[in-house]
Amino acid sequence: MLLLTIHNFGKKTWLLIVFSILVIMAFGQGKDRESLDPTVTEIWEPVPPKVTPGEGTMPPSDAIILFDGTSLNNWTSENGGKAKWTVGDGAFTVKAGTGGIKTKQKFGDMQLHIEWRSPSEVKGEGQGRGNSGLFLMETYEVQILDSYESRTYSNGQAGSIYKQSIPLANATKPPGEWQTYDVIFMAPVFREDGTLSRPATVTVIHNGIVVQNHTTITGGTEYKGLPVYKAHGKKSIMLQDHGNPVSFRNIWVREL
Amino acid sequence: MLLLTIHNFGKKTWLLIVFSILVIMAFGQGKDRESLDPTVTEIWEPVPPKVTPGEGTMPPSDAIILFDGTSLNNWTSENGGKAKWTVGDGAFTVKAGTGGIKTKQKFGDMQLHIEWRSPSEVKGEGQGRGNSGLFLMETYEVQILDSYESRTYSNGQAGSIYKQSIPLANATKPPGEWQTYDVIFMAPVFREDGTLSRPATVTVIHNGIVVQNHTTITGGTEYKGLPVYKAHGKKSIMLQDHGNPVSFRNIWVREL
Amino acid sequence: MLLLTIHNFGKKTWLLIVFSILVIMAFGQGKDRESLDPTVTEIWEPVPPKVTPGEGTMPPSDAIILFDGTSLNNWTSENGGKAKWTVGDGAFTVKAGTGGIKTKQKFGDMQLHIEWRSPSEVKGEGQGRGNSGLFLMETYEVQILDSYESRTYSNGQAGSIYKQSIPLANATKPPGEWQTYDVIFMAPVFREDGTLSRPATVTVIHNGIVVQNHTTITGGTEYKGLPVYKAHGKKSIMLQDHGNPVSFRNIWVREL
Amino acid sequence: MLLLTIHNFGKKTWLLIVFSILVIMAFGQGKDRESLDPTVTEIWEPVPPKVTPGEGTMPPSDAIILFDGTSLNNWTSENGGKAKWTVGDGAFTVKAGTGGIKTKQKFGDMQLHIEWRSPSEVKGEGQGRGNSGLFLMETYEVQILDSYESRTYSNGQAGSIYKQSIPLANATKPPGEWQTYDVIFMAPVFREDGTLSRPATVTVIHNGIVVQNHTTITGGTEYKGLPVYKAHGKKSIMLQDHGNPVSFRNIWVREL
Repeated sequence: MLLLTIHNFGKKTWLLIVFSILVIMAFGQGKDRESLDPTVTEIWEPVPPKVTPGEGTMPPSDAIILFDGTSLNNWTSENGGKAKWTVGDGAFTVKAGTGGIKTKQKFGDMQLHIEWRSPSEVKGEGQGRGNSGLFLMETYEVQILDSYESRTYSNGQAGSIYKQSIPLANATKPPGEWQTYDVIFMAPVFREDGTLSRPATVTVIHNGIVVQNHTTITGGTEYKGLPVYKAHGKKSIMLQDHGNPVSFRNIWVREL
Repeated sequence: MLLLTIHNFGKKTWLLIVFSILVIMAFGQGKDRESLDPTVTEIWEPVPPKVTPGEGTMPPSDAIILFDGTSLNNWTSENGGKAKWTVGDGAFTVKAGTGGIKTKQKFGDMQLHIEWRSPSEVKGEGQGRGNSGLFLMETYEVQILDSYESRTYSNGQAGSIYKQSIPLANATKPPGEWQTYDVIFMAPVFREDGTLSRPATVTVIHNGIVVQNHTTITGGTEYKGLPVYKAHGKKSIMLQDHGNPVSFRNIWVREL
Repeated sequence: MLLLTIHNFGKKTWLLIVFSILVIMAFGQGKDRESLDPTVTEIWEPVPPKVTPGEGTMPPSDAIILFDGTSLNNWTSENGGKAKWTVGDGAFTVKAGTGGIKTKQKFGDMQLHIEWRSPSEVKGEGQGRGNSGLFLMETYEVQILDSYESRTYSNGQAGSIYKQSIPLANATKPPGEWQTYDVIFMAPVFREDGTLSRPATVTVIHNGIVVQNHTTITGGTEYKGLPVYKAHGKKSIMLQDHGNPVSFRNIWVREL
Repeated sequence: MLLLTIHNFGKKTWLLIVFSILVIMAFGQGKDRESLDPTVTEIWEPVPPKVTPGEGTMPPSDAIILFDGTSLNNWTSENGGKAKWTVGDGAFTVKAGTGGIKTKQKFGDMQLHIEWRSPSEVKGEGQGRGNSGLFLMETYEVQILDSYESRTYSNGQAGSIYKQSIPLANATKPPGEWQTYDVIFMAPVFREDGTLSRPATVTVIHNGIVVQNHTTITGGTEYKGLPVYKAHGKKSIMLQDHGNPVSFRNIWVREL
């Protein structure tokens, strides 16, 4: 339009007109990748929130610290009432027969770091040896077990999703050593009528080794029979009392 | 560069220079969405292959037709040898006791259409009534059963991934009516050492109703115990002889 | 326990004791698959709801019918006010310049059936020919276009997720013929702070042919620049006025 | 059958018969979860391979060590020939202008650990500051950039899948500090005809913080225009020479 109204140009002027048209065409032509404008594929919003990492496996700045080494204030007994496990040496330990403990705060999607230790004095075999469990949302168990040079069913050893998914590796350290689980958990999504619309998924890194890789969870953990989903909202993280004095420390969660 | 060498311009010329610079800036500035070049996000290659649809549920132009209504030439007995089921009226029917039949051709990822009919004369109850099965890769069963106003375990009724996944709905038609399964199946991927790297997934549309929605398959179908994956390559599609005279017709596959 | 207290048995009695122990062992021994109890892997609850299928592509019993062939009562203009498109012959047709129309009811996860027809008189080329669009949640476009023997950018032809995902096949029928889209859509899930926790996925079957297979959607459809997710709840289904008289009929939705 | 042939029993015998029948019923009845046999849902094979974890972020026993702190023997220049980057102090550093370097060994699915450090002396802004890149399969870039208190486009900052996916957090440490990426990468799967059947996915943990959570990769990284998939087999890990002296150390891979 503008160009059409300008008519009495000289030679250099026309050169410029042609040049500017060529430039426009170059930028306006999508098929030649070289000529594309790289800024088109930049996205500036949203700006990811800044998080200050912790050293090593220490909690980052946005983590919710579930155990600070001194008290079970963030936990209750799974049976209600005070958590009765033993606290000492910057860790806490299952007190057999007092029942599991669970966090007062409830969680859904999360990144979870937890450290655990099976007793250095080995007692029992298979499922009877250094057995506890990390129950995500009180329902989906990442098995905790002394699986160091100890055999049990593969879908029940350390790093398994109990009776659902065999771990990719046996990364268990010897009894008495501290071990880490780094968990990325996406909670199941339920419809208003209580049926399942999206199953939970979980990635577990055991002592730095991927043992569950975006595994689809098929329902709540069952000792007997098949897992089934039952609708629920956010729930606690629960640790199991399986009668063995397993210890825990350095537990933190980032909500995803 | 070019601009710098041109110096003795008149007023209109400068106007054009400024105009062309503005145009360049407009196209080169990524942050203002309005000014972006829409051609940048066009992709011209590859060109999707043309496929001519069939009418209704008839096979499209690129389908492999597994039953043309007249012969079992594309099938063998699962026990080896000739497929012994009965062909007639543009369909074939399970001949009890002769064993399942499977396709001569082997498949992996696929879109599959199949039509089936349970006997109009109802005999038996639950799993004993109009029972057959569509075994993808001879291994992963989409249950075929007369579940019309008939109760069995939910993970064993029509449209279930047998003993793995309950269908989202009971879309079964009355006995004696033709029913459709439209299946989108992605085969499991195994590593060279035979372990699983990616589980199979399946979507099943039963009589036009989604009953499995990108369900993750947890292993080969088992009547007893839990499913487990065992490495395999492409395999046949298998139909089960469960002793009931279930009929089939209009079976085609598109490899995905 | 019981057995130990009974001591003065005869021969037949001991036979029975041994028999019952064998039975218990048989059922109690997990490692030999043959001996397993098949009922353990049955799940009886929940019972999938009964849905009566429609004939062919007609709505099943639980579908929400969005167009009954006679009125646009379930639709409004995207600009507010009454939907102004033309109704006739059991279909409705884009009235160019009146804007898109959208459903009064809002949806999230869904199975959607829709039939569309590009004008039998071909006008224009590429994006200018029989162009409309199916906007899921008013945001995520499944392209509607006359792509029959007509070339445009691959990620903009019929069956594409517009400028995001090239269809697996060009299944377009000739202009003037009715075409079907069967869509399985899982809505994106957002966190309370508005960020994305799970992207949307979509499967599209075009005239019976899978053209999108559980495609991950990367954000809202954009004509210019990259897609970005912005939090929203349930939204309408929207049909685009792109200036071409595309017609629609037989539209129904099942909430998933 | 057996029971029917035995008739002349005494009282205790009948007690046992009833007892054994009850036991059989208990084990044979699937609907009462309490009575189920827990061994049925045990899976004993396969046995996960034993892997000895490293201390902290040190390589586990099955890792392929790509840099041992002393030489670039496992790397070549991306342009062919010897890798020309500078080795010293147990690390290696980009030598600007010599081009990227890539591993001699080729990889597909993998768990990857890498440590990187942007120069302590800050120069430049945005994309010009401490810029390098981790190219998985030479094709899919996890951005390496000094994003500490430095702003650029969100889909181009540290932890982004470059121009594809914004990181969930900015977990960047100050310039001059060592940083870690822990990556779980599943390679794309292509069909024989070169088209894509399964897109790649990636999880990235930056300094212990999840920044990419099973992100679907939409194609090879492009500076201009949209990503597109092109078929390839296993390929090298490539590190980018973007002109800034970024350093690297402690690089190891576990094939998944």
